[in-house]
Amino acid sequence: MRLELQRKMNVSNQISDPDIHWMMRALKLARRGIGVTSPNPVVGCVVLDRAGQVIGEGWHEYDLLDHAEVVALKEAQQHAADRIKGGTAYVTLEPCSITGRTPPCTDALIKAGLARVVAATIDPNPAVAGRGAEALRAAGIQVDVGACQAEARRLNEGFAHWIQHHRPLVLMKVAMTLDARIAPPPGHQTPHAPYWITSEEARAAVQPLRWAADATMVGVDTVVADDPWMTDRSGLRRRRSLLRIVLDSALRMPLDCKLVTTAQNDVVIFTVSNDQARIGELTTRGVRVEVLPSEGGRVPLDKVLDKLGEEGVLTLLTETGTRLNTAFLAAGLVDRIHVFIAPQIMGSDAVPAFCGMPHFVNLADCEVERYGNDLGLSSLLRDPWPRERD
Amino acid sequence: MRLELQRKMNVSNQISDPDIHWMMRALKLARRGIGVTSPNPVVGCVVLDRAGQVIGEGWHEYDLLDHAEVVALKEAQQHAADRIKGGTAYVTLEPCSITGRTPPCTDALIKAGLARVVAATIDPNPAVAGRGAEALRAAGIQVDVGACQAEARRLNEGFAHWIQHHRPLVLMKVAMTLDARIAPPPGHQTPHAPYWITSEEARAAVQPLRWAADATMVGVDTVVADDPWMTDRSGLRRRRSLLRIVLDSALRMPLDCKLVTTAQNDVVIFTVSNDQARIGELTTRGVRVEVLPSEGGRVPLDKVLDKLGEEGVLTLLTETGTRLNTAFLAAGLVDRIHVFIAPQIMGSDAVPAFCGMPHFVNLADCEVERYGNDLGLSSLLRDPWPRERD
Repeated sequence: MRLELQRKMNVSNQISDPDIHWMMRALKLARRGIGVTSPNPVVGCVVLDRAGQVIGEGWHEYDLLDHAEVVALKEAQQHAADRIKGGTAYVTLEPCSITGRTPPCTDALIKAGLARVVAATIDPNPAVAGRGAEALRAAGIQVDVGACQAEARRLNEGFAHWIQHHRPLVLMKVAMTLDARIAPPPGHQTPHAPYWITSEEARAAVQPLRWAADATMVGVDTVVADDPWMTDRSGLRRRRSLLRIVLDSALRMPLDCKLVTTAQNDVVIFTVSNDQARIGELTTRGVRVEVLPSEGGRVPLDKVLDKLGEEGVLTLLTETGTRLNTAFLAAGLVDRIHVFIAPQIMGSDAVPAFCGMPHFVNLADCEVERYGNDLGLSSLLRDPWPRERD
Repeated sequence: MRLELQRKMNVSNQISDPDIHWMMRALKLARRGIGVTSPNPVVGCVVLDRAGQVIGEGWHEYDLLDHAEVVALKEAQQHAADRIKGGTAYVTLEPCSITGRTPPCTDALIKAGLARVVAATIDPNPAVAGRGAEALRAAGIQVDVGACQAEARRLNEGFAHWIQHHRPLVLMKVAMTLDARIAPPPGHQTPHAPYWITSEEARAAVQPLRWAADATMVGVDTVVADDPWMTDRSGLRRRRSLLRIVLDSALRMPLDCKLVTTAQNDVVIFTVSNDQARIGELTTRGVRVEVLPSEGGRVPLDKVLDKLGEEGVLTLLTETGTRLNTAFLAAGLVDRIHVFIAPQIMGSDAVPAFCGMPHFVNLADCEVERYGNDLGLSSLLRDPWPRERD
């Protein structure tokens, strides 16, 4: 049974408990790249000598060019050059076999004289996708793929989607009550505005989602109703500004809203309006306006995703309202959904998270977390990773 | 801080870790009374000799008359009569000081010569409510109250409510999708009927809820739509049949529905219709029909609860639909809510769990459980236990 499972998951039999230990360390290193690696994948690497001692560690950051394997090998060369030969490298992603901004990592690993390379998963890049492992094996290196595969794949869902489909992975965030309401009934009196549906803990959990995303999106209705900042306030390091996107068919965006007044080439409005005066007013305030062909008066979502893909946006976090939530789900464009649930019942006069849907959406394999008295559910609706070749 | 907390919770400083151990054993015994003790509270008791050895155990069952303390003392008297004096009794509920169907338990405990009585909580019965402890203390017995109080109170929420308000505790069960839908859109084609919202695991978890309840309730709309059995299929022992209640203002109940065809003096229809012919048809089939004064054409919920209280129903499990869920919540009649959530989004064309509400309902201190891929949330909306006298 276990063998069957391993075969199905393409997990090598050669993976031992120490391998899992070192791959978890490599994953920890990889996570240091979140926020500073996109549009590349985050990758971590640990190099051991023949005796099993760590002699090099590394992770990839886009601006530093070197891939994780090269960073780790350079460290090993500096401190223990005589002990690299016959060693093992743990990499959270299959080493690349192609020349991009740097030469192939497979060359560096082969040249270093390693005896074994353990990779968490194959590379989803169709230009690599197993060729890295093949090149290493052809050079006589033992290659084992599949250690901590699920964790490794989770880290690069955005990259896996983008490298294959040239569009960002869509991560839908919904913060709602137990009866799926995202705002109180119109006219409801609140002591403060905006009215927060979820707890402080749940709201704080949104910041890491923004941090790990390249872009976030709202509809203009949310801008008019709540005047959100949509900024990454995680306090964590990021290379590119979080792209703040607004879908605004008729260019109703108020010029005094926070998104406009804080725009620094990081706010993009997608519209189908050709109101040049309005576009000019927004542009002079540092807001980019992208005009797309109208689709029944609406901004075509697939064209938005195409455009964002072209710009190297790997992950788009939607923080939209009723209509756009429903439109994205109805069009089958949502890859992962993250729902925060405040245990409150508001009743049907309050604003619903979703309206009528052409089909049901099933959230398989939900991960559940508590945020104070609130709940968080996360589920992958469409796995962006290529299926294993069986 | 700990002292402050103990004082606030009226928890004695004299409660030690062994006390907690023995009270947990007494709670385990008490649970054996679920299903066979209502309309009395479930109670368990452990008697230790002076050396701390167990010499008697007992729990209460309605038909066996003896209270848990008396059962445990009788066992001790039989096997270790000479070792009772100076011993300790652990009781999950304050011993009664009144004569009901049996003499006061306080008399039995005093007569046995115990040195100490540890109770999990005071009795919510206003006729006892501390007088049991007082009587024991007056006889020179050390009495400590508060060991495992929360667990003990949880076991007798129904009794605590009924003994004070002469109405059952209302436990609302809702099985719904993530967007709070309890049935697919009208006309939706399903391969099987009825369409199950929640998983097999979640549905199985409803049976223990029915087992622990004295009555369950649906609206006639649910009967017409789903033709449910509403039976306790837990397979566990129960003394009285689960009372199956239908609210049916206009007596639309189909004569060939499962509730009618399986009725054995355990199905009660509350109505505001005086259609004697229809009432006769139902009565001859073993269904009881209770006619109540109309309240805007509807069955008055408070009168239903009064009537059930008169009949010794401690806990009513509502398994109702949109309108009744909302009516019970809107009227502030729900004491505990148990929501099963299937991680599916159906969209707003599907049947909602709740409609418009005059106020929001907050579920504080949610307990969360997994049932397969489904979730269960349980929250006490109104604590039926009397507040501690500070």
